[in-house]
Amino acid sequence: MSSWQATSASETFMERAVRLARLGRGPTAPNPCVGAVLVRDGAVVAEGWHTKFGKLHAERECLADARSKGVDPRGATMFVTLEPCNHHGKTPPCTEALIEAGVAEVVVGVRDPNPVAAGGVEKLRSHGIEVTVGVLEQTCRDLIDDFLLWQNTHSPYNILKMAATLDGRIAARTRRPEAVSCAESFARVHDLRSRVGAVIVGGNTFYADNPSLTCRKEGLPTDFVQPWGVVVTSRLPEDPSRFTLLRERPERTIFMTSRTAAHSPQADVLRRRGTSVWPLPGRAGALVLSCGFERLRYDCACHYTLCEGGGRFAMALIEQGLADEIVHFVAPRILGDDEAPAAYSGREAPSMAQALDFRIADLEPVGTDLMLTLRSR
Amino acid sequence: MSSWQATSASETFMERAVRLARLGRGPTAPNPCVGAVLVRDGAVVAEGWHTKFGKLHAERECLADARSKGVDPRGATMFVTLEPCNHHGKTPPCTEALIEAGVAEVVVGVRDPNPVAAGGVEKLRSHGIEVTVGVLEQTCRDLIDDFLLWQNTHSPYNILKMAATLDGRIAARTRRPEAVSCAESFARVHDLRSRVGAVIVGGNTFYADNPSLTCRKEGLPTDFVQPWGVVVTSRLPEDPSRFTLLRERPERTIFMTSRTAAHSPQADVLRRRGTSVWPLPGRAGALVLSCGFERLRYDCACHYTLCEGGGRFAMALIEQGLADEIVHFVAPRILGDDEAPAAYSGREAPSMAQALDFRIADLEPVGTDLMLTLRSR
Repeated sequence: MSSWQATSASETFMERAVRLARLGRGPTAPNPCVGAVLVRDGAVVAEGWHTKFGKLHAERECLADARSKGVDPRGATMFVTLEPCNHHGKTPPCTEALIEAGVAEVVVGVRDPNPVAAGGVEKLRSHGIEVTVGVLEQTCRDLIDDFLLWQNTHSPYNILKMAATLDGRIAARTRRPEAVSCAESFARVHDLRSRVGAVIVGGNTFYADNPSLTCRKEGLPTDFVQPWGVVVTSRLPEDPSRFTLLRERPERTIFMTSRTAAHSPQADVLRRRGTSVWPLPGRAGALVLSCGFERLRYDCACHYTLCEGGGRFAMALIEQGLADEIVHFVAPRILGDDEAPAAYSGREAPSMAQALDFRIADLEPVGTDLMLTLRSR
Repeated sequence: MSSWQATSASETFMERAVRLARLGRGPTAPNPCVGAVLVRDGAVVAEGWHTKFGKLHAERECLADARSKGVDPRGATMFVTLEPCNHHGKTPPCTEALIEAGVAEVVVGVRDPNPVAAGGVEKLRSHGIEVTVGVLEQTCRDLIDDFLLWQNTHSPYNILKMAATLDGRIAARTRRPEAVSCAESFARVHDLRSRVGAVIVGGNTFYADNPSLTCRKEGLPTDFVQPWGVVVTSRLPEDPSRFTLLRERPERTIFMTSRTAAHSPQADVLRRRGTSVWPLPGRAGALVLSCGFERLRYDCACHYTLCEGGGRFAMALIEQGLADEIVHFVAPRILGDDEAPAAYSGREAPSMAQALDFRIADLEPVGTDLMLTLRSR
């Protein structure tokens, strides 16, 4: 397995646990994503992750995987991204499962910030299990960022997705809807769409691309519910029937717009077709997004949203502190055209000191592209 | 050691050899860069690389390193980026050294394309050494791209270096000279400058930044010769004394300019100060660079050049097929300002089909930035 950040065997195993944890992203909400691997003699012998809210925790999944493979966990080491829970919730404490299984050592990514569930490390140690804490700690903390946000705010966790050329362009100057990234990146985006409650775009993208905002991932379950399609714009469409989204699933479409537009005749035309039109505070071009996002969480049960641009909407989301994570696909292509629309647009920054700083939280080659995950520092 | 592409132990060892090989870049020209590691029981026990033209080859450096560490090479495996040479050049054949040393196995990245030196694999095999060829083959082939270019063309090997924000900006809208990337990236750029014969910029960068184009790497040898400073512009400076480059080292400065400008009184003012002014074919804004670059190779003994932008010069270099390698530092910052100068600029591309496609040949986190190396597909 290739790894960009692991500098030791421990980190390599923890990174594997992190990748497993992410497989549960979406269905596990509002629980945190957790991943675990069981290691013996320097090799991974079993794996598990929390797959769905209400199902087994990662540690128990991992032990079950070991059992199903005929692997004896006694004396082995478990790597788990989050401190094993020590309380009776939907499932009995994971600490008990680890103690009963006879695991000799537990390596924990990050301690549980939830006081109710914490204390797992001490419990394990009191039973003679060797515990190490803090391997790939930042990465493991990033993994529960969504969980902490849900506990501490009324906002959904917003993933801003961008696909741009090396020179930061998301389309050619004509704004024609054309693929920027490779097929594998495209598949990744649809995997993301399968995990979120809403896919959101700004008005420029809506009018230029006429998107369907559906998830076209292969092998979706038959009971899969498509995410809400959301458009943020101060300009409502004149003729709804021209737009795929409004033709194909008007009842699953939401416009977030200015108060003026939300009380216009066009808004009523949309509402009569079953489409929601939500007024946002703020003037056209500077709508205050947080109210709309809160409604997505509470009215529409969205724990995650995927915000897919364009440049002005992306910039608004970032400037309003609502981009919890940026997934930026770099396609190794150069347009070199100053008239081509930019991935992040609409600010006036007279000095580099005004640049908004992030950190690279993850990177992964995807097909011929590079997928970067950025977070605030 | 972290690695973004190694998916096996063999690839991890070869990647280490590649990184070592790159340490010789510059001084080894016009020889290829080669790196080697000696592995025993799954661990690297000795390392070596070709350090300088005329010095020992990587394999012999690696065997010498083993000897100096008291490591017996007998029965060990050597990983080497390029097929060991089989001919008497400045040094006797490396194949002989490997056979004498009793190495049991040799893993080769790429075969030697030079028919004079090739045949190493067969020679080793005929002496009972197990040989594998083609581990990280593309990366190892990339490593000798410069060598092949020198053999087959009259051009120096041009490295285009860019440092841009995530949205592809190289400065704020004021064009004020400000750092875009982090201190570690800055140090990398000065390491690159220490390895090349010339540092080249376009006119916009020259006039906006007033750069010195010197290498300020720490610990430079006392006999270090600064690279030539080269400016490509159809507009020669009116007042040379205003510019650092022309004040501090006029004799090491070259202007590549239009034929008209090269025959102007300003050109003579520059020449009287010892500065070279070279005419290029082509009209202003569309100068034909290859003639100037050939002169750099043959008049100034430049095997490598480092081209440092800005956006229009970068684009000209790429479009004229002269960017042999692009080293693009991504700073995880967003300006979001459409008026900020772009890393690649000056083309008109009506469709994404006009984008110039590259492949990501290497990636490496450098400080808080990401260093991408791009090559043509």
